[in-house]
Amino acid sequence: MEKTATEAIQDYYPDDFAWCYGCGRLNETGHHFRTGWQGEKTVTVYTPEKEHTAVPGFVYGGVIASLIDCHGTGSASLALHRKNGHHVGDGSQPPRFVTASLHVDFMKPTPQGIPLQAVGTIEEIHPKKWKVHIEVFADDMLCARGEVVAVVMPSNFLSGNTEK
Amino acid sequence: MEKTATEAIQDYYPDDFAWCYGCGRLNETGHHFRTGWQGEKTVTVYTPEKEHTAVPGFVYGGVIASLIDCHGTGSASLALHRKNGHHVGDGSQPPRFVTASLHVDFMKPTPQGIPLQAVGTIEEIHPKKWKVHIEVFADDMLCARGEVVAVVMPSNFLSGNTEK
Repeated sequence: MEKTATEAIQDYYPDDFAWCYGCGRLNETGHHFRTGWQGEKTVTVYTPEKEHTAVPGFVYGGVIASLIDCHGTGSASLALHRKNGHHVGDGSQPPRFVTASLHVDFMKPTPQGIPLQAVGTIEEIHPKKWKVHIEVFADDMLCARGEVVAVVMPSNFLSGNTEK
Repeated sequence: MEKTATEAIQDYYPDDFAWCYGCGRLNETGHHFRTGWQGEKTVTVYTPEKEHTAVPGFVYGGVIASLIDCHGTGSASLALHRKNGHHVGDGSQPPRFVTASLHVDFMKPTPQGIPLQAVGTIEEIHPKKWKVHIEVFADDMLCARGEVVAVVMPSNFLSGNTEK
């Protein structure tokens, strides 16, 4: 079932915005989540490390929440990039999103040692605000459902004075 | 503003359930969140590591979600333990909760290098199900609001066949 994203949006984030602990390619110790298209859905595949445990044998919810978070912003970036007439890897820089809200329903204890697959369905709720509905599977078992509202990163984000 | 929890509930979780990447005292590489009472509120203080970045200078949302997650389960454990007539460190093992759902609203970019303080208000919605409302501050700035629904860990949790 594992399908890695061969063309991941995070591979093309501008260098200044590629340090995210979840999905930044330049963050040495981070998770390196990579998100790409799979038809009209988006997918991120990630296998948690051994230490990412909740109780022995099961994945820590904070890592599942992290996967959902970055899958949400990555999916929104994929969608707006496509809407703008681009495709991943065409030489143009994709838009960078930040998370306005994150929701996770934990359905089942998530077994460790299995690649997790986050699958996203994208909904535009405003030109700069996208909602992503996410399901996280371990093999064929639905372990968590998530919802992310992602907004285009304000140009003054680095000043800390954002208004969403 | 930093107030560490001198009597933290996680210090007394049974060994088998003290491996959580977020709050397990036995997880060598985890965050080691520690949650205690502060009057009728609960508090967890945590300073993210340098690598826990979203964009340079600001804290990764997945780590904030993790803090909220474990603060929620820890707060629920504190509350039920107290309701059962115990106090932290009296020699009795506290109940262990799992997260049913997690919600985070990110209000402001969260600056790095500052101890974060998660403050919880607890609501019993069922004898085995507690809701915790959480605010995360960096100094006096409210950076995130969270809500966790935590349920007493089912006795068959380790079999993976839980029903919440």
